[in-house]
Amino acid sequence: MSKHHVVIIGGGFGGLYAAQAFKNQHDVQVTLIDKRNFHLFQPLLYQVATGGLSPGDIASPLRAVLKNHKNVKTVMGEVIDIDVSRQEVVLRDETIGYDALIVATGVTHSYFGNSEWGKIAPGLKTIEDAIEMRRKIFLAFEGAERQDDADEIRAWMNFVIVGGGPTGVELAGALAELANHTLRRDFRSIDTSKVNIVLVEGAGRVLPPYHADLSEDAEDHLRNLGVNVKTNTFVTNIDGDQVTMKRDGREETLRAKTVLWAAGVQASPLGRILADRATASLDRIGRVMVDENLAIPNHPEIMVIGDLAHCIGKDDKPLPGIAPVAMQQGDFAARFVEARMQRRAIKPFHYFDKGNMAVIGRNAAVADIHGVHVKGFLAWLMWLFVHILYLVEYDNRLLVATQWGWNYFTRNRGARLITHQDNLSLKKKNQKQHDMKYYE
Amino acid sequence: MSKHHVVIIGGGFGGLYAAQAFKNQHDVQVTLIDKRNFHLFQPLLYQVATGGLSPGDIASPLRAVLKNHKNVKTVMGEVIDIDVSRQEVVLRDETIGYDALIVATGVTHSYFGNSEWGKIAPGLKTIEDAIEMRRKIFLAFEGAERQDDADEIRAWMNFVIVGGGPTGVELAGALAELANHTLRRDFRSIDTSKVNIVLVEGAGRVLPPYHADLSEDAEDHLRNLGVNVKTNTFVTNIDGDQVTMKRDGREETLRAKTVLWAAGVQASPLGRILADRATASLDRIGRVMVDENLAIPNHPEIMVIGDLAHCIGKDDKPLPGIAPVAMQQGDFAARFVEARMQRRAIKPFHYFDKGNMAVIGRNAAVADIHGVHVKGFLAWLMWLFVHILYLVEYDNRLLVATQWGWNYFTRNRGARLITHQDNLSLKKKNQKQHDMKYYE
Repeated sequence: MSKHHVVIIGGGFGGLYAAQAFKNQHDVQVTLIDKRNFHLFQPLLYQVATGGLSPGDIASPLRAVLKNHKNVKTVMGEVIDIDVSRQEVVLRDETIGYDALIVATGVTHSYFGNSEWGKIAPGLKTIEDAIEMRRKIFLAFEGAERQDDADEIRAWMNFVIVGGGPTGVELAGALAELANHTLRRDFRSIDTSKVNIVLVEGAGRVLPPYHADLSEDAEDHLRNLGVNVKTNTFVTNIDGDQVTMKRDGREETLRAKTVLWAAGVQASPLGRILADRATASLDRIGRVMVDENLAIPNHPEIMVIGDLAHCIGKDDKPLPGIAPVAMQQGDFAARFVEARMQRRAIKPFHYFDKGNMAVIGRNAAVADIHGVHVKGFLAWLMWLFVHILYLVEYDNRLLVATQWGWNYFTRNRGARLITHQDNLSLKKKNQKQHDMKYYE
Repeated sequence: MSKHHVVIIGGGFGGLYAAQAFKNQHDVQVTLIDKRNFHLFQPLLYQVATGGLSPGDIASPLRAVLKNHKNVKTVMGEVIDIDVSRQEVVLRDETIGYDALIVATGVTHSYFGNSEWGKIAPGLKTIEDAIEMRRKIFLAFEGAERQDDADEIRAWMNFVIVGGGPTGVELAGALAELANHTLRRDFRSIDTSKVNIVLVEGAGRVLPPYHADLSEDAEDHLRNLGVNVKTNTFVTNIDGDQVTMKRDGREETLRAKTVLWAAGVQASPLGRILADRATASLDRIGRVMVDENLAIPNHPEIMVIGDLAHCIGKDDKPLPGIAPVAMQQGDFAARFVEARMQRRAIKPFHYFDKGNMAVIGRNAAVADIHGVHVKGFLAWLMWLFVHILYLVEYDNRLLVATQWGWNYFTRNRGARLITHQDNLSLKKKNQKQHDMKYYE
């Protein structure tokens, strides 16, 4: 008898947990397809962007993670279409048939229709994004050090972070730590603690999905670190030299060379493909509406999980795009596929909410655990423990714990490399243009 | 009294050691100029290329290393010219005057006039080179796993390393370890131990500058690891699908998707600038001929150190381009500048040769310490000790030692990320071309 072939697209938390959940199912053969050869621990990308961890610390080779899952075959490939009637996934260079399909390709960031901002204001979804953000952050301090003019120095020392969700808050906290402590004695012309970090949030408070008193606590912590928190404020333009913001109908501009994007998300293009090929419905940001079994209506053989799924939670709101949701959905997807194979029903997907947390700098975090609000150092320790625990490989856990212990006591951030930098020119050319004879 | 201004170009071993050697010279102000914001431990780049270490492990921010050197100012900038008569260094965006100049910008790899090979066969001088080499190596296994045709599989499983010096030998050893052990259980269609690693060397033996019996020992070790060593062989063409080699006038071709370049070097363009502006003489590969004080004849205020210098050693041969030479020259350069300030003579530069070593895989190395030849595991331990000892930051030493201990016992290589990859297509399109509607 031929095995039931499950194809999973995407090796993030959802796809990886689903693949692993088939472990002892000997009548199932799994193919996991990903464009990348590694699983990425996205919640720690902001640490790569700020030089605290290396990309390798938060990425695990998918093949290494799945080494002992003999019924899982990993394929590095890019899915460009799905043929729903023939039950085939179309890669750029191959076609793979499926009996059940689990789509878990997540979301990317959205510039709300201003895609030209992407070149100036990097987001934080991939390793390359984090390396680019790291390049911009550390280049800004190098640029400030090189200027003679006070206005120019200011333009390099102004950092604008767009979006006050967990990523924006974590970035702002890490950046403040960096400027106030790590880099303090590294420069000769500038005082890095004079940095101006502006966190811009459209809603009335940071961490909008959390309880109001946690938002307040996070804001207090950020202000203590010197972060300038601007709520009810929208960014209306970014041009690489200045940022325009609007609050209560009034516009304000700020010269800032460095803008970091931690705002909107949009669904992976696989959502659109499912809409066209399987008449799935999409929400406003392109996520796929799924039923109580995480399947597409009329296509119980196609499930969508993780950030790409629009799945209604208990209060009729969609579940948030966070790792715990994706992990639980990955487990459920495997159980649902098995149940269908055995023609039995199972209870619909139910998300067990273990709580939310966000970290702010070195010693502080906020956490909401079933209505119990934890703040400060204790929340920070919890955050640390949970994040190290969920790194999928022991190798990473050991190294990240070592690195973090070291960073904590020394306030060091050794991974602050500027790479993939072309045409280095940091100073405004108010002096004569130089002959480019040798290097052009 | 204004301070003596020493400008150092390049933050490699030579430039960094020179900058540090001025530590207690209160009448000296140092400006260290580098295009990058970090010092790179080049001898371990091959570990990044093969996934054993992360870029951050072998790079240290220059500012962090020089934090306590208050008389050193670090400038991130690109030198495009030197005005010798005005004693000014011309950056892309600024001009900096000097009283003494130390040029330490090293070498890059050379494709012997075939610069088009650069796109296909990455070298190993920068972090970006190592990331590109890593991408090619791990993509090759992914490509092999995706093929159905035996010839295609073979083409992806053939690795050609051009150059049998220390870098080529170290790469071949690490690649063999990777294929024979680390990746052994990661793939489902291919057996990675069936890989074919070809090490091509033009001279009659690998490690040509070393003593013949060490070369022989290195070759034996490589053969035991399954490496196909071809001496007296020259690569005459590379096209991304096959490699043409010539030995004794006979040409041979091998289908190989992956070619790694560990052969020739050429001097940094600063050599050419010094030749034009200060009538310095260059050798065949563009290195600057220096006098016994490492200065340019008739320009005692301009010194050249490290790989960029052609400095005659005791047997009338130029000193090799290795870290210990650069470090000792950096120290000497600082002493010579001080002596000139005080108008006193010092003894000419003398290189104290502590020995040479190269590592071959997991447990073996060869070392030549003052004519004493050490081989095998003992040489490997020595190699490990010396390399960790010379990492410039404690932070790196701790982490690299941890990482290595872990890798040694688990044979793991966790940093095997494929990044900066566009348009993933690994399979030959002998099937129908697919509609690219969604992803183009």
